[in-house]
Amino acid sequence: MPRPDARGDDQLRPVSFTLGVQRGPAGSVMITQGNTVVLCAATVADKVPGWLAAKGRGWVTAEYSMLPGSVSDRAPRKQGGRDQEIQRLVGRSLRAAVDLERLGERLITIDCDVIQADAGTRVASITAGWIALRLAVDGLLRSGGLKVDPIIRQVAAVSVAVVDGWAVLDPVYEEDVDAQVDANFVMSSDGLLIEVQSTAEGLPFSRAMLDTMLDLAGTGTAALFAAQTAALTIRRSTLDE
Amino acid sequence: MPRPDARGDDQLRPVSFTLGVQRGPAGSVMITQGNTVVLCAATVADKVPGWLAAKGRGWVTAEYSMLPGSVSDRAPRKQGGRDQEIQRLVGRSLRAAVDLERLGERLITIDCDVIQADAGTRVASITAGWIALRLAVDGLLRSGGLKVDPIIRQVAAVSVAVVDGWAVLDPVYEEDVDAQVDANFVMSSDGLLIEVQSTAEGLPFSRAMLDTMLDLAGTGTAALFAAQTAALTIRRSTLDE
Amino acid sequence: MPRPDARGDDQLRPVSFTLGVQRGPAGSVMITQGNTVVLCAATVADKVPGWLAAKGRGWVTAEYSMLPGSVSDRAPRKQGGRDQEIQRLVGRSLRAAVDLERLGERLITIDCDVIQADAGTRVASITAGWIALRLAVDGLLRSGGLKVDPIIRQVAAVSVAVVDGWAVLDPVYEEDVDAQVDANFVMSSDGLLIEVQSTAEGLPFSRAMLDTMLDLAGTGTAALFAAQTAALTIRRSTLDE
Amino acid sequence: MPRPDARGDDQLRPVSFTLGVQRGPAGSVMITQGNTVVLCAATVADKVPGWLAAKGRGWVTAEYSMLPGSVSDRAPRKQGGRDQEIQRLVGRSLRAAVDLERLGERLITIDCDVIQADAGTRVASITAGWIALRLAVDGLLRSGGLKVDPIIRQVAAVSVAVVDGWAVLDPVYEEDVDAQVDANFVMSSDGLLIEVQSTAEGLPFSRAMLDTMLDLAGTGTAALFAAQTAALTIRRSTLDE
Amino acid sequence: MPRPDARGDDQLRPVSFTLGVQRGPAGSVMITQGNTVVLCAATVADKVPGWLAAKGRGWVTAEYSMLPGSVSDRAPRKQGGRDQEIQRLVGRSLRAAVDLERLGERLITIDCDVIQADAGTRVASITAGWIALRLAVDGLLRSGGLKVDPIIRQVAAVSVAVVDGWAVLDPVYEEDVDAQVDANFVMSSDGLLIEVQSTAEGLPFSRAMLDTMLDLAGTGTAALFAAQTAALTIRRSTLDE
Amino acid sequence: MPRPDARGDDQLRPVSFTLGVQRGPAGSVMITQGNTVVLCAATVADKVPGWLAAKGRGWVTAEYSMLPGSVSDRAPRKQGGRDQEIQRLVGRSLRAAVDLERLGERLITIDCDVIQADAGTRVASITAGWIALRLAVDGLLRSGGLKVDPIIRQVAAVSVAVVDGWAVLDPVYEEDVDAQVDANFVMSSDGLLIEVQSTAEGLPFSRAMLDTMLDLAGTGTAALFAAQTAALTIRRSTLDE
Repeated sequence: MPRPDARGDDQLRPVSFTLGVQRGPAGSVMITQGNTVVLCAATVADKVPGWLAAKGRGWVTAEYSMLPGSVSDRAPRKQGGRDQEIQRLVGRSLRAAVDLERLGERLITIDCDVIQADAGTRVASITAGWIALRLAVDGLLRSGGLKVDPIIRQVAAVSVAVVDGWAVLDPVYEEDVDAQVDANFVMSSDGLLIEVQSTAEGLPFSRAMLDTMLDLAGTGTAALFAAQTAALTIRRSTLDE
Repeated sequence: MPRPDARGDDQLRPVSFTLGVQRGPAGSVMITQGNTVVLCAATVADKVPGWLAAKGRGWVTAEYSMLPGSVSDRAPRKQGGRDQEIQRLVGRSLRAAVDLERLGERLITIDCDVIQADAGTRVASITAGWIALRLAVDGLLRSGGLKVDPIIRQVAAVSVAVVDGWAVLDPVYEEDVDAQVDANFVMSSDGLLIEVQSTAEGLPFSRAMLDTMLDLAGTGTAALFAAQTAALTIRRSTLDE
Repeated sequence: MPRPDARGDDQLRPVSFTLGVQRGPAGSVMITQGNTVVLCAATVADKVPGWLAAKGRGWVTAEYSMLPGSVSDRAPRKQGGRDQEIQRLVGRSLRAAVDLERLGERLITIDCDVIQADAGTRVASITAGWIALRLAVDGLLRSGGLKVDPIIRQVAAVSVAVVDGWAVLDPVYEEDVDAQVDANFVMSSDGLLIEVQSTAEGLPFSRAMLDTMLDLAGTGTAALFAAQTAALTIRRSTLDE
Repeated sequence: MPRPDARGDDQLRPVSFTLGVQRGPAGSVMITQGNTVVLCAATVADKVPGWLAAKGRGWVTAEYSMLPGSVSDRAPRKQGGRDQEIQRLVGRSLRAAVDLERLGERLITIDCDVIQADAGTRVASITAGWIALRLAVDGLLRSGGLKVDPIIRQVAAVSVAVVDGWAVLDPVYEEDVDAQVDANFVMSSDGLLIEVQSTAEGLPFSRAMLDTMLDLAGTGTAALFAAQTAALTIRRSTLDE
Repeated sequence: MPRPDARGDDQLRPVSFTLGVQRGPAGSVMITQGNTVVLCAATVADKVPGWLAAKGRGWVTAEYSMLPGSVSDRAPRKQGGRDQEIQRLVGRSLRAAVDLERLGERLITIDCDVIQADAGTRVASITAGWIALRLAVDGLLRSGGLKVDPIIRQVAAVSVAVVDGWAVLDPVYEEDVDAQVDANFVMSSDGLLIEVQSTAEGLPFSRAMLDTMLDLAGTGTAALFAAQTAALTIRRSTLDE
Repeated sequence: MPRPDARGDDQLRPVSFTLGVQRGPAGSVMITQGNTVVLCAATVADKVPGWLAAKGRGWVTAEYSMLPGSVSDRAPRKQGGRDQEIQRLVGRSLRAAVDLERLGERLITIDCDVIQADAGTRVASITAGWIALRLAVDGLLRSGGLKVDPIIRQVAAVSVAVVDGWAVLDPVYEEDVDAQVDANFVMSSDGLLIEVQSTAEGLPFSRAMLDTMLDLAGTGTAALFAAQTAALTIRRSTLDE
């Protein structure tokens, strides 16, 4: 069955990263994945939250919000349960990339603001959030604030949907609203799983279908790891000049 | 490796249901699963939320909260992001059990209040919530408010954890805090999946480990389906007398 | 005039206490008074609120809330003015039982969660709250945290209503909604008054009627003091074994 | 024992009412009782709250707040549990003065704003609130909005305290902070009781002491009923000219 | 064109100040400007807000609120955007009167509570707020808490409106609602400008009209500076006796 | 005195508009003015707020918020008094551009989200907000929803600061923090004033200085009107093809 944008079932939408969109934050990147656009900013604070004080460890947290104009019907500014759930997922996924003891008593906040939403904003936030985190940590390493790199893992995420009984990678909005299953996979660059979330929106699904979705997730994140690396390589070559 | 309470890896904690603990709600059940105790109440309102008005369909929603005394350090009454995430999961899982058009323009709210927390409160809420829902719908069928049963599926849920590299079913608190992977599975009685949530707390996990966890989930929910059915059978025989 | 449940005017509903329902809190007790069921938990914190810091005294406070399923029409979770007023009364009444200087710089919080409401939840909270407080302080005495017992007084409370011009002890819901006067009395075991609250819901009342209500309150609290003592005696004999 | 301001134990502080301080509200009165000053405004709305709609009855409610400058240490503007408890008492007491069916589908709100606080602000709010209510209803009667007077009772309130074992009427702040018992009595002009609230702040109190306090309350409210009547008589003679 | 109250275009409404209305605050003044009545209280705290800690400087802030009965339709107690905007203006204007380093690490809060609103409440708050500030600082100078006067400037404010193409000083409510331009001017006693706010409510306005309004503002504030000085002179002569 | 970025005192920072950044809203434009970047979205709703219902008129409102990464120190997401004040100014300024009766019963919301902040975000929001409004109204005219253009005026805004006694147009952050006077001017394309806001941050200012600032504002807005027109001309020629 042909997809709305004529992609293959295992193909991502076109993905690009623009680094340094904002000057203030230690790391800043805008991800464009098809019509989905998310701005991620990583800010470093030298103070951890109270419950972590004096334990010699750092923390990574995230905030997620949609701009009112990111959807057709104006989205209200008030944060709801969905936003909270997403930002908890983003924070958890990015903490999996970091050795929090090596980070030291620092709080890194990843702000993910959705400029335009066309499905997959939470996984785009994770994929771009990892770059923002990487940029912020690079800054700490360059400035001498950190001696040893606390980032121990490359992390990216994709959505998979089951539409009309067929699993497709990185669905667009049109596919997403009709999906029978809606799944998100967070993976590391060595092919392991960090988070699996798969929800039957209509019919329950079989373990065989879960396996098919996992295969697609592996294909998708492999492409994203390459894109992340490319974006950072260009950036670094610029800084080296 | 022996478990803290000497269970086998694929064994549930002892589970029991007490029906009718509260007189007000249409359905009321207290689940005791090991030291975890949750009180679930299903209330029926003849009014759906505004966004669903005049569509001829009903809705099932859930609220989840922990009593301050349910944990050792008093839990504050203010609902946080974790509570919201859990109640969204419970609501979603129980909606999967219902044909919302058959339900008609009704709102069923499943309140899950944790009396005592020893790991697995969200899955216990789903398993017991399904019984509360079943009781509330039975009431509507008996009173003639509903002619056709809108419940199309039996639903239950279990947790699985990976501790010291080993997957165990239905972990206790002691296992939960040390887990490398923390997973929840919502299943239907025909062995299909409704929701899979698996999170690496420490190390990422392989697909093989995910398969092992899925096997344990199948074993666990099979036992819960039998327990749900038994509890309801006793209840019905009482009502028939 | 016969009462709905055929009690005498000066008779309490059947009262029972279940101790230790929750494992976390220092003191935990469920009171069943007729169809009213309240779960009380006493938690001890070694830190007093800011305004009491460094004064060498402790504090006892209470929180009161009704579970959504405790009434026929689902009660919203949001705390209202009535809840606040009740928890202030419970806190004040239980502070009257304690020598706050002997308690030392500790905060004891009494959480009262209404499982089922059929009139008299605030007085049941006080009567059971005193047992939870007693249990928590017993723990501090056993552990050596306290050398001298700070509890200086046994406290219990009852409601009295005037229905059709007739005063009745411990009204049920049916009597409560029709009452012309609604009164609550908190007393100490030596027959003195700690709090008197008497409100004309319909017609103003005479001082003679207030006297009659005070007589009934004395009768009711005498029975509750005996029940509290019995429940604690059983508990202690268990601990002594 | 002499009182700080040399009054007899059964003497009120000097009381005066200034009517019409605010032009907007249907009834407006400022009460000065010693150093306590409260501004009460009665506003009439032709719409009852949702829960009372289409029942042919009206409602009287109250709001109570302290201006930040009413006390020595600036009072924060945020309403707390004490304010809510007081405004519930004021509303309840003034509803006892009104036949809500005769009032028709109207909401009268009594706003009580404390300009200066020196003990007894809640009872002053009730005493002055009754005048504001009387003025607002007088307006409705004059304009023909009401044909039959819905006010069925004159209401006033006083505080009584037990200081050093001695009951005194209408305590000042200095007496209030040291009081062993703090009591408020709302009465009708025919000598009946509308609300009794008596709280042991230090030592429990006997029924004999409660009787003494009730006697003082009768003396105090008798004086207040005369003062209310005098203030309104002057007002009416002005309107008649 | 005659004004509703027959004033000249460059005439203020009658203005008077009552000092010491409240006993608690360090400075307290009630301003009556026509039918507008505002109560201003200045409270001194020996602690600055966190962001100013340990900088050796003080701060002046303001809060603004309207009593529910200050307008014809009861004003809700909840603070809105307009109130916040006004209190920011009042705070800013009064800070312009103070050398914050000379003030030392103190926070002065100016509470402005509108008793009755008939246009011009924000400018009346500034004019009276300056007196309350002056009184509070006088107290600190008298008590020795301050050695050098931190007040470096006398500040007052007026409104100007353009009605039917004609600029008028200090409009009443009737003029205000019809105004094409609504302007507020905060000035110092040496004729300089502290804040200019001029808003076209209907038609845009020319620079020539702005000049006319500025002339009126100069006239109006000159009269207010004299009135402020007179009120304080009387006060001081009283204190000197 | 040379400016940090070597501009003349009467020169704007480079300004550019990108139209159509977001697909959902009826009008969407990103303004870049030096290092300040604001995204404005205009959304049309066919429903006016309750207080305007059934009056045959529309309304224009604005919301303003800064993304956390728009500044160096992460800005918290919670909206404060400054944000509210700015959004009220933006809404008021853009309402001055519209004949609300011609607009009919519609609500246009202008969302202004600051991507990067380097002084002048409120005036940039107004200038770009006018374009977003123009685009949204163009859409309504094209679709036939509106027959007659309700936009009656072109509106733009600039900041002016007084730094070291010298007035400069469109200050950068560096100039803004040191300014003695901070002013914003909203103007119409026929050279009239819509809003004047001028605040002494340090020293009061003279009327001569206000005149100089007004001259600069006229120069600045003239350039902005040309830039707005150019951006819309390009857009329209694209739509016409």
